[in-house]
Amino acid sequence: MALTYELIKECKQSGARLGKIHTKRGTIETPIFMPVGTQATVKTMAPEELKEIKSQIILSNTYHLYLRPGHELVKKAGGLHKFMNWDKPILTDSGGFQVFSLGDLRKISEEGVEFRSHLDGSKHFISPEKAVEIQNALGSDIMMVFDECAPYPADRDYVKKSLERTTRWAKRCKEAHKNIEDQNLFGIIQGGMYADLRKQSAQELLELDFPGYAVGGLSVGEPKPLMYEVLEHTTPLMPKNKPRYLMGVGSPDCLIEGAIRGIDMFDCVLPTRIARNGTAMTSRGKVVIKNAKYTEDFEGLDPECSCYTCRNYSKAYLRHLFKANEVLGLRLLSYHNLYFLLKLMEEIREAIKEDRLLDYRKSFFQKYGYEV
Amino acid sequence: MALTYELIKECKQSGARLGKIHTKRGTIETPIFMPVGTQATVKTMAPEELKEIKSQIILSNTYHLYLRPGHELVKKAGGLHKFMNWDKPILTDSGGFQVFSLGDLRKISEEGVEFRSHLDGSKHFISPEKAVEIQNALGSDIMMVFDECAPYPADRDYVKKSLERTTRWAKRCKEAHKNIEDQNLFGIIQGGMYADLRKQSAQELLELDFPGYAVGGLSVGEPKPLMYEVLEHTTPLMPKNKPRYLMGVGSPDCLIEGAIRGIDMFDCVLPTRIARNGTAMTSRGKVVIKNAKYTEDFEGLDPECSCYTCRNYSKAYLRHLFKANEVLGLRLLSYHNLYFLLKLMEEIREAIKEDRLLDYRKSFFQKYGYEV
Repeated sequence: MALTYELIKECKQSGARLGKIHTKRGTIETPIFMPVGTQATVKTMAPEELKEIKSQIILSNTYHLYLRPGHELVKKAGGLHKFMNWDKPILTDSGGFQVFSLGDLRKISEEGVEFRSHLDGSKHFISPEKAVEIQNALGSDIMMVFDECAPYPADRDYVKKSLERTTRWAKRCKEAHKNIEDQNLFGIIQGGMYADLRKQSAQELLELDFPGYAVGGLSVGEPKPLMYEVLEHTTPLMPKNKPRYLMGVGSPDCLIEGAIRGIDMFDCVLPTRIARNGTAMTSRGKVVIKNAKYTEDFEGLDPECSCYTCRNYSKAYLRHLFKANEVLGLRLLSYHNLYFLLKLMEEIREAIKEDRLLDYRKSFFQKYGYEV
Repeated sequence: MALTYELIKECKQSGARLGKIHTKRGTIETPIFMPVGTQATVKTMAPEELKEIKSQIILSNTYHLYLRPGHELVKKAGGLHKFMNWDKPILTDSGGFQVFSLGDLRKISEEGVEFRSHLDGSKHFISPEKAVEIQNALGSDIMMVFDECAPYPADRDYVKKSLERTTRWAKRCKEAHKNIEDQNLFGIIQGGMYADLRKQSAQELLELDFPGYAVGGLSVGEPKPLMYEVLEHTTPLMPKNKPRYLMGVGSPDCLIEGAIRGIDMFDCVLPTRIARNGTAMTSRGKVVIKNAKYTEDFEGLDPECSCYTCRNYSKAYLRHLFKANEVLGLRLLSYHNLYFLLKLMEEIREAIKEDRLLDYRKSFFQKYGYEV
């Protein structure tokens, strides 16, 4: 197996765990946040900047790359790493979540999903086999099975049928996977908000012995306490000797709560998306940089942050860049927000090491302005 | 005087000269190209990247900064250098060119120019004194007098009256200038396409003994050979012991032709503007990156270029970024185009040193695809 998980220690104060994922392209310290590079670029960022802020692995989207520029082109370019100039690990999703999100534009059958491109309306079909073929062409280090992500709310019967199909599709993905030595295919546990269905999904997928497992179908509109409850049911069902990945989650509170419940990997477009809207995550909560109160604020974004943006630029300057529609503003806030989350993960790892993750949560939330 | 020009040598093959401008914020090797940072940022670029490509001085626009964020705010921030995190020299224009370009939105009188903001239609008045006050607040190393830039074509009578007003305004600027120790005010020679009027303008302005002189009113729509002819008349009228600046010119051919005619400094938005439209300047001519022929072109932009973009990314990837509207594409092409022009200036300096600038022009134009 190309990827191994090393459990370093479990937190005595919570369900969190400190670990390392060893891959052919380097070691990932967990729990970790993965910046999202949907279209073979983490929006506004250069790869060197991602390394500067200590990104250890990034995520890219199979659906988007399949449509543009096309996985065959990426393969001809020497694979996704070479194409985008990133030599550390890459995780690709399966495209499942994106095609299901197309709503009326897609039609699901046992064979796969027929859908129309959001770019030009052209008709496409992705099956489990196709999702694997695309990811094999991209050459990502971690691939995801093609799953069906049930919406929230969804009735028990629908969710049960959906997770069972996800299991059948997971088997087909595993059989179709051509490059076991270099690429690691992860399973995705579904089951919606139903504890017994999560259990069923986990049991079925564990039999397929994937090198890692994700919790899918969360952060789809359910209240956060419900998400935490599902995690509490689900992570104990997952193997201790393999990485656990919570898909699509990236707000600071969810990262801490997820780690507390034993999650090792997270990804989300949140930090870069809100950055482009002019919102910064800081140790004192969110800063909406276009706000008039920052017009003559010559301090940095976050008094506790020592990132490039905070070391060199004032809120007044950042506000000016956003008011003037300057690209540098997008860059500086994206940089800061990603730095902020990667630093948060570093602090979470430190807290696990010292068995004080619940204490850390308390002090973080107090400063950030959350109710605990 | 805060600024001095050191003439190192004159080219034996042309009218070009190799020199150094010594300022309080460092030495500028000439001939030099100045990247333009209109709104206190060179579009898409971070200051560290500007240094990486060996930018020695940048330009910023008085008109834009006056309107947004306002020169008083920049002053409170500690000046433009601190505000935008750039510690090397900055040249600011006077705002004259921009307000005259407003057409129907402005009204010229002897006192100054009344105009409406292109941002919100608000009414403003800039006089020579006001232009200096703004530039004093910004704290630029080189300031420009508030001049009237005649359009092309313009009749002799209009141009004569206009240049005489420019002289009167130059006097008023000099009298208003408060910070002679740290900031250097340059005069601007006008006179349109009329050799005798250029002479009159130069003579009048030389009496005011500015530490440097610009040639204004060129690159305003006239044919390039006419611009070169005007330069041939004008640069011999300019002091040998002071820098000579050709305003608003930045295409590779014009930079070479300008240097050949004794110009030391150039600026233009061209390299960053065409970059954002997906056009790269290369040693083999322009590359329009969205062109379908680059879809599977896995070579860099320019086989002779060793910039960050050319070392790390293929045309296929750059094309993908532009097709997908990704900010990184704007960054990588802006970086390359500025590098290309700064490298060109370095090669021009080398050619002057070795008395072979005409030979250099020939070989450059042959590769680039120009008729000489």
